[in-house]
Amino acid sequence: MLTTVAPLDPVWSQRAAEHQARLTMPTGALGRLLDLGRQLCAVQETLAPRADPAAVLVFAADHGIAEEGVSAYPPEVTAQMVANFRRGGAAINVLARRQGASLHVIDVGVKGLSGAEETRVGNGSANFLHGPAMSEAQALRALEVGRRSIADLHGRELVRVVALGEMGIGNTTSASALSAALTGQPADAVTGRGTGLDGERWRHKVRVVEQSMERHFRGRAGPVDPVEALTAVGGFEIAALAGAALEAAARRLAVVLDGFISAVGGLLAARLQPTAAGYFIAAHAGAEPGHRIVLDAVGLRPLLDLGLRLGEGSGAALALNLVQCAADIMRDMATFEQAGVSDRPDAAS
Amino acid sequence: MLTTVAPLDPVWSQRAAEHQARLTMPTGALGRLLDLGRQLCAVQETLAPRADPAAVLVFAADHGIAEEGVSAYPPEVTAQMVANFRRGGAAINVLARRQGASLHVIDVGVKGLSGAEETRVGNGSANFLHGPAMSEAQALRALEVGRRSIADLHGRELVRVVALGEMGIGNTTSASALSAALTGQPADAVTGRGTGLDGERWRHKVRVVEQSMERHFRGRAGPVDPVEALTAVGGFEIAALAGAALEAAARRLAVVLDGFISAVGGLLAARLQPTAAGYFIAAHAGAEPGHRIVLDAVGLRPLLDLGLRLGEGSGAALALNLVQCAADIMRDMATFEQAGVSDRPDAAS
Repeated sequence: MLTTVAPLDPVWSQRAAEHQARLTMPTGALGRLLDLGRQLCAVQETLAPRADPAAVLVFAADHGIAEEGVSAYPPEVTAQMVANFRRGGAAINVLARRQGASLHVIDVGVKGLSGAEETRVGNGSANFLHGPAMSEAQALRALEVGRRSIADLHGRELVRVVALGEMGIGNTTSASALSAALTGQPADAVTGRGTGLDGERWRHKVRVVEQSMERHFRGRAGPVDPVEALTAVGGFEIAALAGAALEAAARRLAVVLDGFISAVGGLLAARLQPTAAGYFIAAHAGAEPGHRIVLDAVGLRPLLDLGLRLGEGSGAALALNLVQCAADIMRDMATFEQAGVSDRPDAAS
Repeated sequence: MLTTVAPLDPVWSQRAAEHQARLTMPTGALGRLLDLGRQLCAVQETLAPRADPAAVLVFAADHGIAEEGVSAYPPEVTAQMVANFRRGGAAINVLARRQGASLHVIDVGVKGLSGAEETRVGNGSANFLHGPAMSEAQALRALEVGRRSIADLHGRELVRVVALGEMGIGNTTSASALSAALTGQPADAVTGRGTGLDGERWRHKVRVVEQSMERHFRGRAGPVDPVEALTAVGGFEIAALAGAALEAAARRLAVVLDGFISAVGGLLAARLQPTAAGYFIAAHAGAEPGHRIVLDAVGLRPLLDLGLRLGEGSGAALALNLVQCAADIMRDMATFEQAGVSDRPDAAS
């Protein structure tokens, strides 16, 4: 079902590094921006990469696990926030607008929203403390919804970079359980406070993740297959994130992952096709403890560290500006030769 | 000579926090962006702050201390880079353009450039290993050049945020010496590798700073007066940065400080008028070890940590986007009430 992702050709990164050494600045003086520039060159196979137009995709779904009191917010907030995205009042609307990015909200299974949309895989996932979160058919369908969201967008309009975000009350619990299943880390290492749990309720959330691990993967040593993990403890929007990340990589689009949940989507994608990870950019290091563990597992280093814990793609939207700047630097700076600037350190001092 | 800077009124920060608590996101979920938002509200005395239009000012001058072999680049690079700024080929041109900011390059004393410009305080500062870097009259004049650059710009066009950067071969050595003089830290704690010195030449640079400290401030316990420090070991562009930062604060403009040298300009400004520090934003944590020491002394926490070590205002230009996003969030997000989103954590779960 899934498209093949070509590995990045290291020759482009090498050529990009040679070009960077000719730009009018001390070698390496723009730090991580130059790493990003080389990555964009390899992704787009050019020395003149562009990061516009950019698109932000927000996948939304509800989670049966929210019944267990693992979130500080009631489940109906998912639908309310989707309505807020569609009216333009949420943080992600404001941030996408500033970066000149289009915003696309995809309902993969928000409770109580119209069942008419073909992107809906169900009316929220099931409570995975008591059974599988979804059927395997639903997991595959949710992956496909993500894949198609990118394919439709990319077929319809020019887009060069995609930022991936999500909304779903209860989804940090699903992301924690997926992280535990995919990396083999214990529940308490990958479970955080979500949108704001106190100590007592955080311990409860850890127990919910532990019991879910025990129920679904009892006695299993080592990481679990990604589709099996999604079926057991996943969420529709998380599966869609993975599908979107894969399809974007297959189409040679750079993929900016937002927070913990988007990073888990990236990890699922990288487990399905390891070559995809080369197309990914980690926007930020969020407050969730599982976030860094998951980024390490994908081999990504976050760009920003601003104490963000919102989701919605907000951190990815912020990082889009850095990606845009990185592309501009590759394309628009003068070389030492063009500018008549002395490029040899120590030439005269 | 210097304009008075009004202290920020804490009532605005308080009102801004109350407004933020009503926006459709979990309390505090946008981290440092919300800190920035409250600061902008206090600076502009509004709950609807704006960070456009923004302007980047780059102050440039040469340094007699460059004769001592403390830089990896020859001194003529200062003039060459100023020409590059003026032709639009440098990193700061590219980054300012992306952020929609105007760019202003001010020659405060670049060697070999035309002497006609009234912003020129001299043909580079003197070698402070052997005598004062400048006269007290020159130090005051350079402060005034910075002040006037802001006054002229602000009188001529609408500007709400200024980003301050610099260019000057040898200026990390001056900044290190100023840091040592102003904070009392030892030379090796505030002296870094600049644009790329190896171990041997770094040790030489530390010795140059140590000997300069000994020459100018022998036996002095505690921090030195800012104008005296500038006269002894300063640079024309660093004095101008301090004057610009003060004047911008006096005009209630937020001031984004770039790297180590701009931060030293900010520290000088804060020593001249402690109330000015409330208007400052530290763009990033650079590679220079003195940078964090100086930011700590001003009471600033850097926004970005991307391994930047270019100067020119490049980090400040990158951070401008965060400042713009922070203002947009305050102005353009919906409240829980407006959006019909449940705002009470635990209301239903």
